[in-house]
Amino acid sequence: MKKILMGHNFKREGFKDLEGKFEMIYPENEHFKREEVLELISDINVLIPNFSFQTDKEVIDAGTNLQLIANYGVGYNNIDVDYASQKGIPVTNTPNSVLEPTAELCFALLLATARRVGYYNNKLHNGERLGWGLFDNPGLPVYGQTLGIYGMGRIGQAVARRAVASGMKIIYCNRHRLDKSIEERYGAVYVDFDTLLKESDFVSLNAPATAETHHLMGEAEFKKMKNTAILINTARGALVDEKALIEALKNEQIFAAGLDVFENEPKISPELFSFENVVLTPHAGTQTYAARLDMQREVAKNIINFFEGGEISKVN
Amino acid sequence: MKKILMGHNFKREGFKDLEGKFEMIYPENEHFKREEVLELISDINVLIPNFSFQTDKEVIDAGTNLQLIANYGVGYNNIDVDYASQKGIPVTNTPNSVLEPTAELCFALLLATARRVGYYNNKLHNGERLGWGLFDNPGLPVYGQTLGIYGMGRIGQAVARRAVASGMKIIYCNRHRLDKSIEERYGAVYVDFDTLLKESDFVSLNAPATAETHHLMGEAEFKKMKNTAILINTARGALVDEKALIEALKNEQIFAAGLDVFENEPKISPELFSFENVVLTPHAGTQTYAARLDMQREVAKNIINFFEGGEISKVN
Repeated sequence: MKKILMGHNFKREGFKDLEGKFEMIYPENEHFKREEVLELISDINVLIPNFSFQTDKEVIDAGTNLQLIANYGVGYNNIDVDYASQKGIPVTNTPNSVLEPTAELCFALLLATARRVGYYNNKLHNGERLGWGLFDNPGLPVYGQTLGIYGMGRIGQAVARRAVASGMKIIYCNRHRLDKSIEERYGAVYVDFDTLLKESDFVSLNAPATAETHHLMGEAEFKKMKNTAILINTARGALVDEKALIEALKNEQIFAAGLDVFENEPKISPELFSFENVVLTPHAGTQTYAARLDMQREVAKNIINFFEGGEISKVN
Repeated sequence: MKKILMGHNFKREGFKDLEGKFEMIYPENEHFKREEVLELISDINVLIPNFSFQTDKEVIDAGTNLQLIANYGVGYNNIDVDYASQKGIPVTNTPNSVLEPTAELCFALLLATARRVGYYNNKLHNGERLGWGLFDNPGLPVYGQTLGIYGMGRIGQAVARRAVASGMKIIYCNRHRLDKSIEERYGAVYVDFDTLLKESDFVSLNAPATAETHHLMGEAEFKKMKNTAILINTARGALVDEKALIEALKNEQIFAAGLDVFENEPKISPELFSFENVVLTPHAGTQTYAARLDMQREVAKNIINFFEGGEISKVN
């Protein structure tokens, strides 16, 4: 029986489909320690890493029987995919189960930041007085505004679908220009990054963390944005130079930010807590019980199909 | 020159169209005091009340030259419209300018409550530690869930448009069943109130405050809701028995609430502050600078068209 090493003490109900077919090795606590992984992995056929489970050269080399790395998540910057490819080990991810939950949180952050839901709610819960006058603490409109989406893949498009229904115009950057039929569906206009920064009322990052997207948003980029613009990041923390973002907020170069991901998770730069116009969530793009289980089911499907034949979400 | 009494120290730029055509009497402070209104009104042709400006029999009787009440807002529970009608005084409101901003805040509250943006943001801003584990503090999904809309007028439909793009199914209650073409646009199913309460994952109130909708949501109604359901109220506080809501939250009869309006504004029942699963905003449905000015422009258009001929948003 093939052996699976679990990168997290996952819920058993999400991996029911694997029962009886595989030997599943779960940690006693939330995670295995790194030394435990290195000790166990030589005997393992499938590894399931999650966001914080670093699968690097050392781990891959120690996995002398490793046949598959079945990532729990869509982003796989936690895995040395190039090295896995060199060793002929396929890596799969979970693009389907994360799609709608992540786009949903992205748009939730956009609305909460623009319409100051985070600010109002925080003040009221803390027992502070808020002016209720007609022009007290106004937010910014979403309807009629321009959303610039950096990374118009499936998640970016699911964000665009919500934005169009909310009366927004879409401009986008992407590695490749999309088919005309997709552009027409969202009325989306392909632009260069400079134009995206200059014309957007909202900039949403929906691209993976790669060498090319590292610190995509730095000092120069924030300076190009409108000072009434809002940055939304639900992709990966590495896309934003967090220090430059803090400076841009201090200098009021941008109006606000909605952030689900951070450069040094689970640490958040403490300066960000001091900005009332920043809405913060703890990498919660797929933080619903239903989505977490759906992701497990997608991992299980990748593993079963890899061994039995069938479609898998392969990234290398 | 006809005289307009301003129920608020409105922004001059929003009433530019009235300049030169009308004599505009603004308060020195934010509002006129009630006794000032009663003193001034005999000479006034047009009164512009806002949410908190009570236009009752005494005010209307004192307005011996009153020709028009041009409300600033779509809800007009601040005005004794029946009595105005008896005296032959038309009342207008601003349904167009409030439409999208209010639907937008409604959906912002729905997303922020379900996906726990309010909760996470408060914890993080207050320097509290949050678990970042895969199953820590999960929210509820929106995609695939059922939204029950009570009051499927223009705002209800603008909420439905956003909800459909977010993957929700729509059921609704309304005084009259909508045209089939409108139902089809949103895949909306007309149901009785009991069914709406029992089947909805989210209940959104989008009906005006009237004698029939007073305390629409009371003890019995909360008991009928799913204990995983969320209440969103961006209509008027009077629709919800706030004490019964507090009991329902205490007893976990419902999962959460997103509230923009309250029974005794600007007071909020302090018990509501203690619920981490309640997202609160201070009657901010139209709280953007742009929307506030648009509302003024719609008021101005009603006044001008009333005297010069043209379309007005008349409610009586």
